[in-house]
Amino acid sequence: MTINRQFRLKRRPVGRVTRDDFDLVESPVPEPGEGEAVVRNLYLSLDPTNRIWMSDQPQYMPPVAIGEVMRGGGIGRVVASRNPAFKEGDLVNGLVGWQDYSIAGGPSELFPPTVIPDGLPIPVTTLMGACGMTGLTAYFGLTEIGQPKPGETLVVSAAAGAVGSVVGQIGRIMGMRVVGIAGGPEKCRFITEELGFDAAVDYKAADWREQLKAATPKGIDVNFENVGGEIMEAVVARMNLYGRMPLCGMISTYNDTTRPRYDISPFLMKRIRLQGFIIIDFKDRYIEGSMQLAQWLVEGKLKARETVVDGLENAPETLNMLFDGGNTGKLIVKI
Amino acid sequence: MTINRQFRLKRRPVGRVTRDDFDLVESPVPEPGEGEAVVRNLYLSLDPTNRIWMSDQPQYMPPVAIGEVMRGGGIGRVVASRNPAFKEGDLVNGLVGWQDYSIAGGPSELFPPTVIPDGLPIPVTTLMGACGMTGLTAYFGLTEIGQPKPGETLVVSAAAGAVGSVVGQIGRIMGMRVVGIAGGPEKCRFITEELGFDAAVDYKAADWREQLKAATPKGIDVNFENVGGEIMEAVVARMNLYGRMPLCGMISTYNDTTRPRYDISPFLMKRIRLQGFIIIDFKDRYIEGSMQLAQWLVEGKLKARETVVDGLENAPETLNMLFDGGNTGKLIVKI
Repeated sequence: MTINRQFRLKRRPVGRVTRDDFDLVESPVPEPGEGEAVVRNLYLSLDPTNRIWMSDQPQYMPPVAIGEVMRGGGIGRVVASRNPAFKEGDLVNGLVGWQDYSIAGGPSELFPPTVIPDGLPIPVTTLMGACGMTGLTAYFGLTEIGQPKPGETLVVSAAAGAVGSVVGQIGRIMGMRVVGIAGGPEKCRFITEELGFDAAVDYKAADWREQLKAATPKGIDVNFENVGGEIMEAVVARMNLYGRMPLCGMISTYNDTTRPRYDISPFLMKRIRLQGFIIIDFKDRYIEGSMQLAQWLVEGKLKARETVVDGLENAPETLNMLFDGGNTGKLIVKI
Repeated sequence: MTINRQFRLKRRPVGRVTRDDFDLVESPVPEPGEGEAVVRNLYLSLDPTNRIWMSDQPQYMPPVAIGEVMRGGGIGRVVASRNPAFKEGDLVNGLVGWQDYSIAGGPSELFPPTVIPDGLPIPVTTLMGACGMTGLTAYFGLTEIGQPKPGETLVVSAAAGAVGSVVGQIGRIMGMRVVGIAGGPEKCRFITEELGFDAAVDYKAADWREQLKAATPKGIDVNFENVGGEIMEAVVARMNLYGRMPLCGMISTYNDTTRPRYDISPFLMKRIRLQGFIIIDFKDRYIEGSMQLAQWLVEGKLKARETVVDGLENAPETLNMLFDGGNTGKLIVKI
């Protein structure tokens, strides 16, 4: 292949993402400049935060500019290099973007890609998922912000997703009662039977409020929040005194054109600690977290499910699976 | 006096408190039972939380029952005792209630009154204010939850009130830039000229948003929140990455019949920690806090302003001063 296809952001999506929000531009595969390496992208990591980057709401990184290649994490292989840090054949992990080829080693990179060591005892794709950004998000969000204690009750929303599925499994490892909120009987079966959660709440069922109540007889000590909306409000209403709420995301509202609003008086009356966080807050501890997650994975204490969709050209529509609940575990595009 | 007047809650107030929400019942002064002491109440501490106790919304203590004597903190003198812990003539500090006489030493007391030592170097009424519950609220809320650092910017709302005025002064002691939000030029003058705040924002002025912006050129690191509503939203919008928000109260909304709702996405995007708290969370550290506050008071680093209203019979209307901004510093009823 000598052509590099790139998804360039054409306009800011309103509501759901569509293919028409992007130009799919073809250009020759770049040659590496001095200090650069050319990377053949192999996998894209699709994450809720991609949707935020497309919008111009206040956020934790600059939004993707109109005309810019869509930002995205992923894994690729070095095919040409004029940088001693990258050898031809190296696998790298980083913000490779929604394109066939990317450049590593450029002077202005916010998060330079890292070379993946040979001979890892775990599948390389888990470096985007259970042992990568989403796993680290689960790990630090739960352990550092959630402050879990054995015997406490943990609720996690989007529980069959890349972050939620790891949050719940870590909660189990830490001796918590773990309740996952997920959409549909199959996902509920997955998190309880395959991942070992104590209970599941199917938010698509008419009686989800009763299910939540039944699953949390002692209330809720930690709410790992991924979703927002009325489900979050129902969870907060059941939180115990001195509960902790790591606020990781509010995916149910990312496609909304107005910001939803919430009653915050329970946080006062029940002295709940709400703390927003983003994984880059813990960047100095990535290695520590990845090693722990990889160890659990190798020991079989942690299971890493993936949903893989073929074809770069399908990236925009595939992203919507995150909002529709179409994926289980980490959502990946194989280029 | 041989008559004990008691404000008994007749109905739950809707909106502002009125005298008609209570029965003022007269009965003989009680005799102490075995293990009890009779206390002549001298001062009542009026606090925003009194309004919460009158309502049946979810809260941190049981609401005052209909027909029950209105709960309230205060100071009194023991006039008869059959309990060795209380001697005749002792001053006591505790939940004396809205009445002329109270009983100390009863078996079911949640917060037993404490005897005030003789010879304190501070005015006894400061044990309800700057060295008591409101001062302790300021002290622990700012130091433990706000995690202040020298050079950071602190904003405190209801800044001329009993809690806010102490929060700001402690912020100055800790080397912060302190901005107070208060209503009207006189209160703004008071907090800057008399208490030493760096700047004041008059929320009754049409240009309060511009004042807030001008007073916080480096954004806001700690928001000690007492008020809620649109002012809180404007403050949160100016908070910096990793800001802290001790949520002490939301007095602007306690008279509302519906709960106001807020956009919480800034807490995610800016990784702000919001923590509700109530002073009883720190009850094991009251003595430590009171000693520190008393020391600052004696040293002249802390000033304790009080607004004193005469007459138990005026308690209900006086409470509204808190919501109207009618008081400066600690609001006290002298019985």
